[in-house]
Amino acid sequence: MSLISISNEGLDEFALIARLTKGLTAWADVVLGVGDDTAILDIGGDRLLLATVDSQVEGVHFTFQGCSAEQVGRKAMAVNLSDIAAMGGEPRYALVSLVIPPHLSLNLLQQVYDGMRQEAEAFSTAIVGGNIAGAGTGELLILDVTLLGTVERGHVITRAGAHVGDTLCVTGTLGAAAAGLYVQSHTDLPYPTQAVQTARFHQCIPQPRVREGRVLSHFGPHIITAMLDISDGLSGDLTHLCQRSHVGARVEVAKIPISSTTRAIASTAKLDPLPWALHGGEDYELLFTVAPGHIEAVSHAVQSAIGTPITPIGTITEAQDGMQLVYPDGRVEPLRVHSWNHLVAGGQ
Amino acid sequence: MSLISISNEGLDEFALIARLTKGLTAWADVVLGVGDDTAILDIGGDRLLLATVDSQVEGVHFTFQGCSAEQVGRKAMAVNLSDIAAMGGEPRYALVSLVIPPHLSLNLLQQVYDGMRQEAEAFSTAIVGGNIAGAGTGELLILDVTLLGTVERGHVITRAGAHVGDTLCVTGTLGAAAAGLYVQSHTDLPYPTQAVQTARFHQCIPQPRVREGRVLSHFGPHIITAMLDISDGLSGDLTHLCQRSHVGARVEVAKIPISSTTRAIASTAKLDPLPWALHGGEDYELLFTVAPGHIEAVSHAVQSAIGTPITPIGTITEAQDGMQLVYPDGRVEPLRVHSWNHLVAGGQ
Repeated sequence: MSLISISNEGLDEFALIARLTKGLTAWADVVLGVGDDTAILDIGGDRLLLATVDSQVEGVHFTFQGCSAEQVGRKAMAVNLSDIAAMGGEPRYALVSLVIPPHLSLNLLQQVYDGMRQEAEAFSTAIVGGNIAGAGTGELLILDVTLLGTVERGHVITRAGAHVGDTLCVTGTLGAAAAGLYVQSHTDLPYPTQAVQTARFHQCIPQPRVREGRVLSHFGPHIITAMLDISDGLSGDLTHLCQRSHVGARVEVAKIPISSTTRAIASTAKLDPLPWALHGGEDYELLFTVAPGHIEAVSHAVQSAIGTPITPIGTITEAQDGMQLVYPDGRVEPLRVHSWNHLVAGGQ
Repeated sequence: MSLISISNEGLDEFALIARLTKGLTAWADVVLGVGDDTAILDIGGDRLLLATVDSQVEGVHFTFQGCSAEQVGRKAMAVNLSDIAAMGGEPRYALVSLVIPPHLSLNLLQQVYDGMRQEAEAFSTAIVGGNIAGAGTGELLILDVTLLGTVERGHVITRAGAHVGDTLCVTGTLGAAAAGLYVQSHTDLPYPTQAVQTARFHQCIPQPRVREGRVLSHFGPHIITAMLDISDGLSGDLTHLCQRSHVGARVEVAKIPISSTTRAIASTAKLDPLPWALHGGEDYELLFTVAPGHIEAVSHAVQSAIGTPITPIGTITEAQDGMQLVYPDGRVEPLRVHSWNHLVAGGQ
């Protein structure tokens, strides 16, 4: 739930999109249009086309102090790969649009581009075009990546299919990206060295769960009923899933997978790692729901094919129950959205 | 031939792209990748996918003083529609990525977006997604539009197929966009009122030749051997065509279609309109080559279907002859590229 500063007021990103796109014409060949991270398009053939775009603005989404130039490039590509992964799609083609400030060194730009290329090629994605524009009097580098993917008809997974009784799951672990951000802005604490490196790496280069998404999509939407990637934080993205599926969710705190790295950094900082895992954002893990009776088969398939752990963290409930957190002592509290605000606060 | 200011040096846009993309992996399903305005992709089915992206930066490509907010939006969409038109494609889907400075009024943004929407819908194109990011400390509005289109297999037209003896043609007229730019920066001359309005309109809202491109593509690439849209100016874009087709070209000055509007403004300004038509850019007409014996059928088809005039302006020659201008008195001179530099000079 990002705020955009416009007219010097903060406006919810989704409210702004809703306002701008109100009354947009509906087209028969657009399976899913504005309102999701990725559009689903039907251009004939046995596969649907997926299309998504995301921009990374210097000073808002990245700085060259925080991460290396190559990592900045990799991340700009990775966040888009993650959007395709979230639909169960296969990423295929990237278009890279750059807005370049006059002071930028060519060497730095080459490193950024090489990072984008490496990340794309790691997922068999071709950079097929793009655009380069001068920023004029603008001072900030802007990386705008469009990613196109494909998915077999009948295998695309959206945010909208979760049913009461489905199991809510995540891939990997949560909170490391937020821990990495914390370490960057609180440098004077005696963190374990290895933990710092791991958390910084997670924050600088998200690992898009493309292969995991493909395995999940093979089960089809009757088993993997809804899916998205965690970019806004578990609380924020679970809200999207619940709203689009018209359901509620009950998340068990004790089951949320938090890595030893994240726990070690939180411990050194004398903080509870739970808020990082719940609201931190930028973990780019997949959040998905599994129809009753299939969780073991799904979990086994992903772990045996790729090795990534799948963790059931809760259950889908009726919409009227909203989103709830269940603590180990049995206490139940509402799960409220508390996303980190990259757009107004200037992110990292 | 645009210059990008980078490391405080001017670098040719195409040289920069070549440097950044050197050694990019070639993929079997990429029919045409980096190096053209539009990528051609094969995702199966009976149509090829076309993908292009173009960004418009405030102060570089547009100002809100020069054109209305709605016109700014229409142009951002139109330049991309024109890229799809240039391949003979049918535009289908647009993704709109906005980078928004904090001072921007929501009302202005809505007008820009409405302009994009109107232009898209005028060509049956659906806005299917996008992204909105805050510009942080950035002061400039950036409109980044990705356009996806389709074209029947065997009907896509690239820049690369022109042969010696083909006829070089353009749609519509050339020079009006440059005349509009001139009028904007030289306001104190007694131009005919109607001419000013027409030229300003041409400059603010290019008319993408989508319908004309579709009629041309129906002839197929054995008749329409090469095509592109004139964004960099006739001299600049003819260079692209000649380089990619490994040919030269001989352009007859007397045949270049210059509208009465453009002539009237040039006359008031006591200038020769020819440089506007040759180098002005942003006319977004189609420049294409027709195999011998077909020009009458092609011209008739476009004019009867749409009413747009087709003008033969020269002939394709051997590469070693380069690009030549033939004056009415028989004088032959080299046609040199002299594009207007929007990226370094700040355009309009």
